[in-house]
Amino acid sequence: MELTLIGIGTGNPEHLTLQAIRAINAQDLILIPRKGEGKADLADLRRAICDEVLTNPETRIVEFDLPVRDENTPDYRQRVDDWHDAIASAWQSAMAEAPDAARVALLVWGDPSLYDSTLRIAARLDPARQIAVIPGITSLQALTAAHAIPINDIGAPFLVTTGRRLRDEGWPNGVDTLAVMLDGGCAFQSLPPEGIHIWWGAYVGMKEQIIRQGPLADAADDIVRTRARARAAHGWIMDIYILRRTI
Amino acid sequence: MELTLIGIGTGNPEHLTLQAIRAINAQDLILIPRKGEGKADLADLRRAICDEVLTNPETRIVEFDLPVRDENTPDYRQRVDDWHDAIASAWQSAMAEAPDAARVALLVWGDPSLYDSTLRIAARLDPARQIAVIPGITSLQALTAAHAIPINDIGAPFLVTTGRRLRDEGWPNGVDTLAVMLDGGCAFQSLPPEGIHIWWGAYVGMKEQIIRQGPLADAADDIVRTRARARAAHGWIMDIYILRRTI
Repeated sequence: MELTLIGIGTGNPEHLTLQAIRAINAQDLILIPRKGEGKADLADLRRAICDEVLTNPETRIVEFDLPVRDENTPDYRQRVDDWHDAIASAWQSAMAEAPDAARVALLVWGDPSLYDSTLRIAARLDPARQIAVIPGITSLQALTAAHAIPINDIGAPFLVTTGRRLRDEGWPNGVDTLAVMLDGGCAFQSLPPEGIHIWWGAYVGMKEQIIRQGPLADAADDIVRTRARARAAHGWIMDIYILRRTI
Repeated sequence: MELTLIGIGTGNPEHLTLQAIRAINAQDLILIPRKGEGKADLADLRRAICDEVLTNPETRIVEFDLPVRDENTPDYRQRVDDWHDAIASAWQSAMAEAPDAARVALLVWGDPSLYDSTLRIAARLDPARQIAVIPGITSLQALTAAHAIPINDIGAPFLVTTGRRLRDEGWPNGVDTLAVMLDGGCAFQSLPPEGIHIWWGAYVGMKEQIIRQGPLADAADDIVRTRARARAAHGWIMDIYILRRTI
């Protein structure tokens, strides 16, 4: 019994690695989650990837509805834990549709190691199930590729953090480069912009990709407006940015 | 005139993305650097990748000797800057062998954004040359995949840093997870090991891959010995690790 989490990159079907394609074709069962309408429903992308690269006629695809998080649970960690429990149950129901499947996979946006819950949900399953991970291109890499920039200065560290942390805690000590993910609302606006450069991107790697860069003092307003327009147009947005102190 | 930096992953030819394969085949010229013997000469790997995926008969491959760093230059930054200048000159000499090549590429180990100099060297060329970047799987992702672990705790930040920084500055404030790269000599030994877990790997993604994990207090000696043996056996080593405070 093996569960394989296959990183598929960030929406460009060409982000798929040869290893991912081989892994997709090695499965008995691939689970595809469906979100509600108007969400970032990546089910279409996952179906398109399977249509394109899955050549093994024995591989079954089963779709399931992703549970929604109960926003009435006041504690954040508890809310996330309960949600992950519910998703693990949904996986198990979906797997029950193909009870003989020994090799089961999920296609994970980006890379399963980076701000993704799939490994934590997998840990809730039968411990006899082996977990394997196939790495995939992350949105952070798609961002740096789009801007053709290195993430680090020579020999210097960088911190990968969340919009929530940046808003609540400000610029952390001891580091001049931040990569900010999971930001629901332009947390860079909470910083004094002087001496900071921003490289921003939305839908990075996808055909909808938008990028902006510049001194934060000049670029922030345009990014906020661009983000709001794009979100309204698409019904959802995923964005990411790098901030670097330049003085 | 375009220079494309193509991330090729960490030594597993199956780390190649479909985008990288397409980019390799879109080139007029691919430059392959050669190091001296006994070094991590990845020229063989790059040749093998071209043998396997390059189907465009118009694409030329030119090899060149990578200049060595002048260790007599006392200042570290100056030493690196001079070295990058010398590499840029070596690229230009190699490109002169195919003066009509409008599209030139280098195959970059891992991802061009992460602790890699290729973008900085490219910035030394004729500014009329457009730079494009194709992301690739990094050793950090190969490490987390090998251990089947997420790099971050839920909603928590992590710092990517170097062995030199860790040795000189100790555990940085405000962060419980570190990813340590470019460590020439087990800098984790400089930390009081209590309450730290380590996930270590050498040659991650390659067939020579070795991984170890455990509480640092228990695992450190074995990792130091394993690393020394592997380095002696192969003549070179690249390793990487994640440290997490568990208390």
